[in-house]
Amino acid sequence: MTRFAFTVEFDGRPFMGWQRQAHGPSVQQAMEDAIHAITGENAIIHAAGRTDAGVHGRAMRAHADIEKPITPFRLMEAINATIRPHPVAILGCEAVADDWHARFSCIGRAYEYRIVNRRAPLTFDSGLAWRVTQTLDVAAMHDAAQSLVGLHDFTTFRSAHCQSASPVKTLDRLDVRREGESVIVDAAARSFLHHQVRSMVGCLALVGTGKWTGMDLSRALAAKDRAELGLNAPPDGLYFMSARYDK
Amino acid sequence: MTRFAFTVEFDGRPFMGWQRQAHGPSVQQAMEDAIHAITGENAIIHAAGRTDAGVHGRAMRAHADIEKPITPFRLMEAINATIRPHPVAILGCEAVADDWHARFSCIGRAYEYRIVNRRAPLTFDSGLAWRVTQTLDVAAMHDAAQSLVGLHDFTTFRSAHCQSASPVKTLDRLDVRREGESVIVDAAARSFLHHQVRSMVGCLALVGTGKWTGMDLSRALAAKDRAELGLNAPPDGLYFMSARYDK
Repeated sequence: MTRFAFTVEFDGRPFMGWQRQAHGPSVQQAMEDAIHAITGENAIIHAAGRTDAGVHGRAMRAHADIEKPITPFRLMEAINATIRPHPVAILGCEAVADDWHARFSCIGRAYEYRIVNRRAPLTFDSGLAWRVTQTLDVAAMHDAAQSLVGLHDFTTFRSAHCQSASPVKTLDRLDVRREGESVIVDAAARSFLHHQVRSMVGCLALVGTGKWTGMDLSRALAAKDRAELGLNAPPDGLYFMSARYDK
Repeated sequence: MTRFAFTVEFDGRPFMGWQRQAHGPSVQQAMEDAIHAITGENAIIHAAGRTDAGVHGRAMRAHADIEKPITPFRLMEAINATIRPHPVAILGCEAVADDWHARFSCIGRAYEYRIVNRRAPLTFDSGLAWRVTQTLDVAAMHDAAQSLVGLHDFTTFRSAHCQSASPVKTLDRLDVRREGESVIVDAAARSFLHHQVRSMVGCLALVGTGKWTGMDLSRALAAKDRAELGLNAPPDGLYFMSARYDK
């Protein structure tokens, strides 16, 4: 048996999310089906994050245990050839220690949220970004975001379906910047609550359009009450960017 | 009657090309149908360039004559609302002089060709870039490209279906640069022959992989013979970027 670690890119539009679902396609199932076709084995894929329906991955990390003798390169090539036409690509594959775990060994996760700030409808970016038509004050968004950085009870920014044992998390980074007509929110933490990034981005957009002040955002955080959430941003703009592990 | 000029973004994947076709959807027809729905008029759209099937537009320029009294802003909003679900967006609209012509007044056109230079299959960029798996030597491509800049007979780089009166054109710019895993070819001229950019990019890719030298490219140009073309790049990576007009 060899444990293989994967770096996975996927376009989340056709999927019900990362995790296997009875009712529709998932990235996990697409990968497990490809591995079954290659090896005949029923390997289980574990991932650093279980993204929701419509959320994308730039470099998701995952692992699986495989009996068949095969090199990481050949396994990667075989999955990439087999997984079509699903929009999933294995960008990297390596053999790792048997106790390395894509989820439990992960000590840092980064997400990016992409807003397209324009009046015209989206063409190329349909399903790949959140269109906000009112001009966003990116400096105000970035300043307000800093009140969320650090150790907080993020109950306000947590989905009712969140399975995390505690709503208390340390947010390491929440930066907002403009790139042409795009506004990018860059978030990093050891781990996130369910819907946390989308909920934070939704409220930051309220700050960006002037509906909320930075003070409103601080108040929503301090309330520790989901009812105080201003807005949950759609999944379209959310990308799992990277996972960090100890050497 | 008012002549309206449009700036149009479109994802070329579902279209048979810009120009109206009996056998499938076109950007021209999508726009003309939207204008008919809004005004009841059978306006004809003229564009700066007639892109092929699968080619994209970032800022195509076009115009149409409309009788109905309507402001440019309201016309733009109405087309954007009506043209869905086609991946076409009007980014700008203005009233122009009756003798302004999107095609005949145009004095400069710019295209971008995007290669994704990686081994893994494309996900987000499927149909939006040409994947080249062998590592490209971008400096060699840029150097070789300079031999195509200037006034030349581009017969080698011209489709058999080209309707241009002459194969002699002045190429103003052909720059090649790397942006991460992307290789971008930036081309500008007063006008281009049919398939000229794709044919130049195909041959530059041969230079980038070492199959051709810069000398081979110069020889192909000098041959003035379509049979000497090394490779025609697929439409997927080609974007009409901008059109230039006298003030």
